[in-house]
Amino acid sequence: MAGEKGVKLLDFWASPFGQRVRIALAEKGVEYDYHEEELAAKSELLLKSNPVYKKIPVLIHDGRPVCESLIIIQYIDEVWPGKNTFVPSDPYSRAQARFWADYIEKKVYVTGSKLWKLKGEEQEECKKELVEIIKTLERELGSKKYFGGESFGLVDITLVPFASWFYVYEAFGGISVEREAPKLAAWAKGCKERESVAKTLPDPEKVYEHVISLRKRYGVE
Amino acid sequence: MAGEKGVKLLDFWASPFGQRVRIALAEKGVEYDYHEEELAAKSELLLKSNPVYKKIPVLIHDGRPVCESLIIIQYIDEVWPGKNTFVPSDPYSRAQARFWADYIEKKVYVTGSKLWKLKGEEQEECKKELVEIIKTLERELGSKKYFGGESFGLVDITLVPFASWFYVYEAFGGISVEREAPKLAAWAKGCKERESVAKTLPDPEKVYEHVISLRKRYGVE
Repeated sequence: MAGEKGVKLLDFWASPFGQRVRIALAEKGVEYDYHEEELAAKSELLLKSNPVYKKIPVLIHDGRPVCESLIIIQYIDEVWPGKNTFVPSDPYSRAQARFWADYIEKKVYVTGSKLWKLKGEEQEECKKELVEIIKTLERELGSKKYFGGESFGLVDITLVPFASWFYVYEAFGGISVEREAPKLAAWAKGCKERESVAKTLPDPEKVYEHVISLRKRYGVE
Repeated sequence: MAGEKGVKLLDFWASPFGQRVRIALAEKGVEYDYHEEELAAKSELLLKSNPVYKKIPVLIHDGRPVCESLIIIQYIDEVWPGKNTFVPSDPYSRAQARFWADYIEKKVYVTGSKLWKLKGEEQEECKKELVEIIKTLERELGSKKYFGGESFGLVDITLVPFASWFYVYEAFGGISVEREAPKLAAWAKGCKERESVAKTLPDPEKVYEHVISLRKRYGVE
């Protein structure tokens, strides 16, 4: 496939945003050089490639950087259309897919992070909010295999990295995704059967340990 | 043009998000029914059409709602490709356009609103942040006519409603866009020469009066 030699990913193993990009590249069968970044000592290449946010993930394709995970996923989909396309061809379904990817982007990480950063009443508020988000996604999924129907796509790629965080939600917030949203839990299991997802997502216990270290860094404990 | 009879827009006159959609529809020459919403008494149609956020703008096309302004703009571009397309055909340029539209979406409204909501040191912080955002956009614009070059597109449509807020930034924050970012100020003037923009953007003084009433509602004064 043309251009693959020139594909580099600046990333961090635990990042759900980076994992999205790794899953998208794996789905398309694109080979790339993986550069693990140290968040406390970012590389010159990262600072130069993403001067606005200075954040991973950055996909560098033929020397040109693309930033922000949802934008990178759409870029990958357009450059390597291949057999699996991530967005539906019908404009209305495509708008719906973008709406839900954007909903996940706005809600899940922010609320999930507050869950292990906050305590007491604020944490309780946050728990309710996260349960509401999970139930909203469960309703949207319905009895479909993937969010887009039979085809694994943009919304699935956007959400699935958080499946490794379900254990964290249970450990710090007592939220059982299996109980609150059984179809979403089954969807997560189904996604993990895909090679692209299985090889990308870290063990939930490893994510839990990572969160413990983050809590220490933020002085939560 | 097919389907135009079935286009409705739920909106609110002062909303920069709604204005984006009106500009996009005007650029494509799409006729539609405009429904002004009262934000204190939202219509049943709005609540039913956007159950997730319950917010304007919502574009209803042949009975099906599309929500979130940036998603609506892309939907309009795909359904009515016409002579002006809002995003470049090259995937890399398209990713860049999406990046900047997303940057504006994340930064401008939130920071601009804080400017007239906050006081003292917090407001000073916010001023610095808004100036940095304006200068970042100025750098990205460079000496191009529009953000995408010769063609008025996604990034321009996303940003231009805030041109009516420049007066508010000056009145409440002492920020002169003309002084901080002369090219951006010239770009805004150029955009206002387009009929789509001229007929959509409210008078800056009307926006100022609106902000005065918002400040009263939020108890800032």
